[in-house]
Amino acid sequence: MHATTIYGKNDVRYEEVPKPELIRGTDAIVKVVAACVCGSDLWRYRGISPVPRPARIGHEFVGVVESVGSEVSRIEVGDFVIAPFYDCDMTCVNCRNGFTTSCLEIGWWGGHDHWGNALPGAQGEYVRVPHADGSLVATPSWPADELVPHLLTLADVFGTGHHAAVSAGVKQGSNVAVVGDGAVGLLGVLAAHRLGAARIVLMSRHEDRQNLGRDFGATDIVAARGDEGIAAVKELFDGIGADAVLECVGTKDSMDQALRVARPGGQVGFVGVPSGGPELPVRQLFDSNVGVRGGMAPVRNYIEELLPEVWSGALKPGRVFDLELPLAEVAEAYAAMDERRAIKVLLRP
Amino acid sequence: MHATTIYGKNDVRYEEVPKPELIRGTDAIVKVVAACVCGSDLWRYRGISPVPRPARIGHEFVGVVESVGSEVSRIEVGDFVIAPFYDCDMTCVNCRNGFTTSCLEIGWWGGHDHWGNALPGAQGEYVRVPHADGSLVATPSWPADELVPHLLTLADVFGTGHHAAVSAGVKQGSNVAVVGDGAVGLLGVLAAHRLGAARIVLMSRHEDRQNLGRDFGATDIVAARGDEGIAAVKELFDGIGADAVLECVGTKDSMDQALRVARPGGQVGFVGVPSGGPELPVRQLFDSNVGVRGGMAPVRNYIEELLPEVWSGALKPGRVFDLELPLAEVAEAYAAMDERRAIKVLLRP
Repeated sequence: MHATTIYGKNDVRYEEVPKPELIRGTDAIVKVVAACVCGSDLWRYRGISPVPRPARIGHEFVGVVESVGSEVSRIEVGDFVIAPFYDCDMTCVNCRNGFTTSCLEIGWWGGHDHWGNALPGAQGEYVRVPHADGSLVATPSWPADELVPHLLTLADVFGTGHHAAVSAGVKQGSNVAVVGDGAVGLLGVLAAHRLGAARIVLMSRHEDRQNLGRDFGATDIVAARGDEGIAAVKELFDGIGADAVLECVGTKDSMDQALRVARPGGQVGFVGVPSGGPELPVRQLFDSNVGVRGGMAPVRNYIEELLPEVWSGALKPGRVFDLELPLAEVAEAYAAMDERRAIKVLLRP
Repeated sequence: MHATTIYGKNDVRYEEVPKPELIRGTDAIVKVVAACVCGSDLWRYRGISPVPRPARIGHEFVGVVESVGSEVSRIEVGDFVIAPFYDCDMTCVNCRNGFTTSCLEIGWWGGHDHWGNALPGAQGEYVRVPHADGSLVATPSWPADELVPHLLTLADVFGTGHHAAVSAGVKQGSNVAVVGDGAVGLLGVLAAHRLGAARIVLMSRHEDRQNLGRDFGATDIVAARGDEGIAAVKELFDGIGADAVLECVGTKDSMDQALRVARPGGQVGFVGVPSGGPELPVRQLFDSNVGVRGGMAPVRNYIEELLPEVWSGALKPGRVFDLELPLAEVAEAYAAMDERRAIKVLLRP
């Protein structure tokens, strides 16, 4: 089969690799129908994170179950399934608490499963899933082709935007600000809208993203950044700031902006992978009573909640995919996202 | 009249000062019935915070209204009143949002009111209250003398312990850990118990405080600190840690301990005044999904909620006062708390 390997900065290759096989009784092999490139994949592509040795890459996919191990009971061969961006058992105390990203038997696509066996990356033709009954969610039936991009967002990016909104405490009537106009930020807008936010300000300087943000439910756009941007957001909300702020970038500057557009007693929900470990200023939090919650999104816990509205077509989160390529052109997919020619690229094996 | 002035390290004096007078129409003058020394007063007494010039000190008091300005309508001369540790209007957007410590017209006892007029410290015979109708809460009638210490805790320390519990998200059935066995930590235990916590672990090495903690509702005591203490708390809670952690100290070590005894997806409520600005490790928060909320407690917003159970005698938060002295002996009060001979000292003018 073919899959994607990252060799180093600006160097991803579509190459022939061994097809994965069932190892444990709880495994499934899934034939990938669609995968995609994540903003976090770009850390290595841009040379910000090291690539000590060539590595399989990709962690978002939907597909069809090709085979299952002897202990799999909930998932069946032929099911169309959505996987989260990690492997989890859904039975341990952390999974039951709603935090599958802290599963006691967690595994990572493109890395290893809980027992140390290699797990193929998802930007490939087949993936092995160690906890098939835990990780995978089967759709009610096979989806129409145009539904596939929307379903694929449940693997990571929509669930992550939703996690930002949930972590920020968005509820009916909330005043919300969203920092970051990438795919996660845009879907944070959609998630906040779905949760009943009264007003949603998207901080964005790009017209195409502003437009999609408005379609997803943003009521206001603030293009200014820094002190000027913060003042503009506060102005919109009684001069004090937003009830809930979604931090969807992960840099020191974006976190600073998020903390400062929150009103006293407000809450920042953060899902941007922290780049370079921006530390949080505890005295500023103390003085303002602004809370901070978030992290790696437990998207598996959200799939059942979000799926019905995606399945029915009421929500169209897959609109963040503004480029679709054959998997064989994965190098171009990375380049397009790196050069900001695309928000997010969908890949079909 | 007499009041307390801090001159520098280990130097507080009971001395003659001018009696405050009404300045604005919204003012009241309150004759202090009881005041006390706060752990945060010790920062200057210990020389950790500077004392650039002699300053009036103290911010917790209950008393009787002696006179009111022409615009005061809710509070009457002769009322027995509880004041929060700051002055607030209760009408601005932040007060209405529940965060009176961010009142747009906030003032500080021992500092200044919103308009720059000096505000007497509360460790004195009389205090001027700029927003009498906002800050002061009158009790249903004059309290019996033995109720006074319990009522006094609503000025700061019980409301602050309650804020830690609220910020940590304590609810019916929560597993709770409390870091800090000072007056705030102990009242954090009481607050968590009141909110329905199933199990409350107090981290304490002092037998008298352990005993009071048990009386307030602690179900378990962990005396170990550092890695050993963290392991002991996790052991009590499924090996993963507590749902809610109350950080009631304010040092880098105590915050580290709090973050590490929280389970994945748990929440730390912090009210310890950050000493030396311990920054929060955002990558650790990201990986664990542990949230952090808290800060300067908006105790004014809590007085009405907590008062009935204190008034009825159902709750006895004033048990944290283990020493009572005449105000004239305020220097001994500071020394006793500094040398940990007392948890918290009540002063009577």
